[in-house]
Amino acid sequence: MSNTIKVFAPATVANVGPGFDILGLALEGIGDEIEMSLSGNEGLKIQMPGSDLPTDPGVNVAGVAVQALLDDLGSSQGITMTIFKKVLAGSGLGSSASSAAGAVYAANNLLGNPFSKHELVRFAMAGEAASSGKAHADNVAPSLLGGFTLVRSYEPLDVIRLAYPEDLVVVVVHPQIEVKTSDSKRILKKDISLETAIAQWGNVAGLVAGLAAPDYDLIGRSLQDVIVEPVRSMLIPGFDQLKQRAIAGGALGCSISGSGPSVFALCNDTTKAEKIGKSFQELYQHLGIDHYVHTSKINPTGARVLS
Amino acid sequence: MSNTIKVFAPATVANVGPGFDILGLALEGIGDEIEMSLSGNEGLKIQMPGSDLPTDPGVNVAGVAVQALLDDLGSSQGITMTIFKKVLAGSGLGSSASSAAGAVYAANNLLGNPFSKHELVRFAMAGEAASSGKAHADNVAPSLLGGFTLVRSYEPLDVIRLAYPEDLVVVVVHPQIEVKTSDSKRILKKDISLETAIAQWGNVAGLVAGLAAPDYDLIGRSLQDVIVEPVRSMLIPGFDQLKQRAIAGGALGCSISGSGPSVFALCNDTTKAEKIGKSFQELYQHLGIDHYVHTSKINPTGARVLS
Repeated sequence: MSNTIKVFAPATVANVGPGFDILGLALEGIGDEIEMSLSGNEGLKIQMPGSDLPTDPGVNVAGVAVQALLDDLGSSQGITMTIFKKVLAGSGLGSSASSAAGAVYAANNLLGNPFSKHELVRFAMAGEAASSGKAHADNVAPSLLGGFTLVRSYEPLDVIRLAYPEDLVVVVVHPQIEVKTSDSKRILKKDISLETAIAQWGNVAGLVAGLAAPDYDLIGRSLQDVIVEPVRSMLIPGFDQLKQRAIAGGALGCSISGSGPSVFALCNDTTKAEKIGKSFQELYQHLGIDHYVHTSKINPTGARVLS
Repeated sequence: MSNTIKVFAPATVANVGPGFDILGLALEGIGDEIEMSLSGNEGLKIQMPGSDLPTDPGVNVAGVAVQALLDDLGSSQGITMTIFKKVLAGSGLGSSASSAAGAVYAANNLLGNPFSKHELVRFAMAGEAASSGKAHADNVAPSLLGGFTLVRSYEPLDVIRLAYPEDLVVVVVHPQIEVKTSDSKRILKKDISLETAIAQWGNVAGLVAGLAAPDYDLIGRSLQDVIVEPVRSMLIPGFDQLKQRAIAGGALGCSISGSGPSVFALCNDTTKAEKIGKSFQELYQHLGIDHYVHTSKINPTGARVLS
């Protein structure tokens, strides 16, 4: 049981087309890094070099998440952590989830792994609640567990790791404009027509079946969000053109990552994915919008120890 | 190319818990039988011994379905059919779908199989439209294709055969009271809360994932319908007690078959299923309600030639 650890927790794409609030996947090569040490009984201390997010442990998502874990253990263990933010806040790539997941994963390790990764989800969710007002799991679940995850139910919490084909590749583009999660929640209607809901759960069923088979055509036909995307896409500059470029480039599908403004495309071919990433860049260069493009496979591992 | 054929098309359980309007499964050992002959250019003629359903080919679901097939072929072929109804109308076990599916399957065979079973779904749907006013596919798809089916989308029509474990057993009980499909549609609200819809599609995703894995616990946890069952179950005598008996007897789950009043329980063990069937019978004997109980595996074949 080492006294210091450094961990990585990946950025994530939540919703993934039709799976609003239930589906998520983990990315490779992008995520927060957290260095953590046990420190007697001195409470929680957080540093975030280069970030202007709050470091008060009662407000910081990682602090709130670790405190929830310690409270569950009845522990007053002091912990010091340095969070290296690599996932930009407000990107729609699960920035707060990455910090919360990484922090509880690191703390659990330092404390001798009293919890499984599945059990850590609810502590990380406490961090999410501090950030967005609601204890979402669709980003923290894939950040912790890796792969493609389903939050079947919140009460009781039931998180499932879905079967999916290993050759899937995700392209994400982050237009660096600010869209607050709270704003993008507010523009959603509280009620929807039963008919629209049926169309959505038909696509959810098709997507899960297509991932399990695997059946790439079915995944592609099912990557349709008829409820959230039509509303939220209005907040994303050039969304329709991005989607056109993705489909023209052979992507299985393309939709909003989390609450946006990042957009993802899902492919089953790395070469196609990289070309689509370039066409995203070209569009945003043309539109004069600062942006960041990332292409990776789905991260099968989730949170992991770096050293 | 024979001139006469006899076919079987199974009864079906639609919706299957959370999958309102999209999921369905085929039963073994119960279904309509149809004897059909080609007959020159004399139009369609239908007989239904022992049934008081309309035999006018412009109204009868099988007649409408076969006419849709003939129209698509541009054929004026005369056809004579005798439908032996084994699935009671208004049972919630896909009675009209069984006749429509069997009829188009028989006609397709007699005409040299110009269509695949998948392609026949839309003709059978025309029969369903004549019966219920809407061209549903969630009963005709499993009756034709067998197994566990998903109607991912209606426009365009996209029917998928889902992966499922072979040892699933279905118990259905049909309380012989009349509930018209049109009535049970009417009592549904046209709008639902987004929050409820999310709970439903979480369960749809869990059910499809559980069937594919297979993961019986997950299938059981996911067999929850938070939208339709709470409303429609009020029309079914003793519904709550049936469900209690099913769960106490070890069923994975229990819900309404189609628009009711039949109720189904899904099990992964024949002995348990038969005991649950008996406990259903005992309840309805106690309540003085005429009823019919049927226990079978999922029918993997769907519509088939008998002779």
